[in-house]
Amino acid sequence: MQENRAKCMKLAERIYELDGEVYQCLGSSLGRVFTGSRDECVESLAELMCGSRKSYLLRSEMALVANMARTIPDEETRARLMAEYNNILVEIKSIPTSFGTVDILDESRAKLNAIHLHERFTDKDHLIVCISRTLGCAGTDIGFALANALKINFYDQKIFNTVLEHLDADKNSIEDISSANEVPNKVRKPQKGQTLDNFHRYHGLPENDAVFFNLSGLLCEMAAKEDFVVMGRCADVILTGGRIPHVSVFITAPFEQRVRRVMKTHSLDRKHASNLLKQLDHKRSKYYHFFTGRKWGDPENYDLCINSASYGIQGSVEMISRMIDQNGLYRR
Amino acid sequence: MQENRAKCMKLAERIYELDGEVYQCLGSSLGRVFTGSRDECVESLAELMCGSRKSYLLRSEMALVANMARTIPDEETRARLMAEYNNILVEIKSIPTSFGTVDILDESRAKLNAIHLHERFTDKDHLIVCISRTLGCAGTDIGFALANALKINFYDQKIFNTVLEHLDADKNSIEDISSANEVPNKVRKPQKGQTLDNFHRYHGLPENDAVFFNLSGLLCEMAAKEDFVVMGRCADVILTGGRIPHVSVFITAPFEQRVRRVMKTHSLDRKHASNLLKQLDHKRSKYYHFFTGRKWGDPENYDLCINSASYGIQGSVEMISRMIDQNGLYRR
Repeated sequence: MQENRAKCMKLAERIYELDGEVYQCLGSSLGRVFTGSRDECVESLAELMCGSRKSYLLRSEMALVANMARTIPDEETRARLMAEYNNILVEIKSIPTSFGTVDILDESRAKLNAIHLHERFTDKDHLIVCISRTLGCAGTDIGFALANALKINFYDQKIFNTVLEHLDADKNSIEDISSANEVPNKVRKPQKGQTLDNFHRYHGLPENDAVFFNLSGLLCEMAAKEDFVVMGRCADVILTGGRIPHVSVFITAPFEQRVRRVMKTHSLDRKHASNLLKQLDHKRSKYYHFFTGRKWGDPENYDLCINSASYGIQGSVEMISRMIDQNGLYRR
Repeated sequence: MQENRAKCMKLAERIYELDGEVYQCLGSSLGRVFTGSRDECVESLAELMCGSRKSYLLRSEMALVANMARTIPDEETRARLMAEYNNILVEIKSIPTSFGTVDILDESRAKLNAIHLHERFTDKDHLIVCISRTLGCAGTDIGFALANALKINFYDQKIFNTVLEHLDADKNSIEDISSANEVPNKVRKPQKGQTLDNFHRYHGLPENDAVFFNLSGLLCEMAAKEDFVVMGRCADVILTGGRIPHVSVFITAPFEQRVRRVMKTHSLDRKHASNLLKQLDHKRSKYYHFFTGRKWGDPENYDLCINSASYGIQGSVEMISRMIDQNGLYRR
């Protein structure tokens, strides 16, 4: 503790001196952050570093000094003082009681985050991007373009239905199917009057639950074998449950933008487009909440949320690729 | 229209043939996506491209073909078929009635998005990153570290107060202040019994409105002169109002993670930490809604939302830098 205190005092002095030098370079007395007596200032600076709850105030003081130092005309002096500033920051970080020292990283979350795969890239690691999206934000177009850009597979509801229907048709070929190489074209939709069939098919579970149950198994099997982009299906939550690394992205855009786009894509008038949006957003939100207990579209439930209206389809694809593929492992 | 139709038929044939080739390479008859008669399949594929509302189904069919093609063992054949697949996608994009052709990009939004600055980087363009965040997600630590990483200025509430107080103290030095080089240390907090002073100071406006009013002016002036990271203050909305390019980022983390962190940073027990979080989130949410009429923390109101629990402080900084600085203009 004493030692910590001594370290803080030393640093406080360096900060005070740095401010003094910056002030000299800029001339104006207003340029000085710390205007009290040297002892007072150093004392209170040290206080901020040593276990004070107000250590964040020190961050603002440091920022003020740096904001000024960056305006020093003479390049050499500026470089020298900014270097000292950076050194001081490093030292501050080494003080357990100072700001910026308590991280927010959730180890278990990070372990499951495919972004960190580049640090431990083995054959067992697969890049899986789970995309949730609101209707009309071009989320599926973005997901599809992303899969093509990363040269990995793409799965949406229709493809899963195809695979699941096939699974259902031939329980023996699970191995083959899970890699989605061998799927029939026609999707058998359950007909009316199939209630008893369905009862057997879904092991007596309500249909939704059974489909979700089957999907979960399929998804985890696929995840062990290939890289892919998956749209919706609560895939992020299923994979988290299966302790399988992935990246979860939520894509949306302002309601007005989405209405305009849906008017074009579905050739609807404003009223019908806007109703369709509200209905589908509500449906997806309910589906997600029912199977996950979480709030759909709440940023804290995803690794990343993107506003596609800011970037467009191609721009969003580029940004997501940049984020998940910093080493260019896929774009090669 | 006729011409469009002809183009669709031609493409449909190419898609059907591609599927056929993929099927031959993989051998299994299940490998075939299109199992109907050639004419039927080509006809229905063309339908999907020509103004059908179901063109998105074509995307799934294409994905199925590609998912299979990627599993072709022989590298040369795989490369050839994937090339044809990509060529077909390009052609499909050129058909106005097909999927992926209606973009979601909001031109006016994009114009105001600093991410696009790299395309038109002039002295007049400044990189301004507006960060909103929930309490406890280390958002301010991330913003501060980001400013240091990008070597640009950093502004938070305390620094703004300092600047505004100085503005207030000396109306004549706005020019100097707006670059935030010349600010006094002590922040004058209005004392009790200053009501009349305040009435003059705030031009008869309620104090909050006046401070917001002054802040808006200051922010827009600064934005014309320097690059910076700004924490909170509805800066994103103020700059949008001023038609000034910027990037808006919302940072948060799961409640449980934030509680744990605040317990450490503020040395509080779980109950008090959790109450503090709820209070401050509510306060920020109210402030944002009062001055913007928008929902705080709703992904559609920001360019990007980041879950800091997935990346930690340094990881979040790296990701945001990668996103806004793809050309390394700043990290140089």
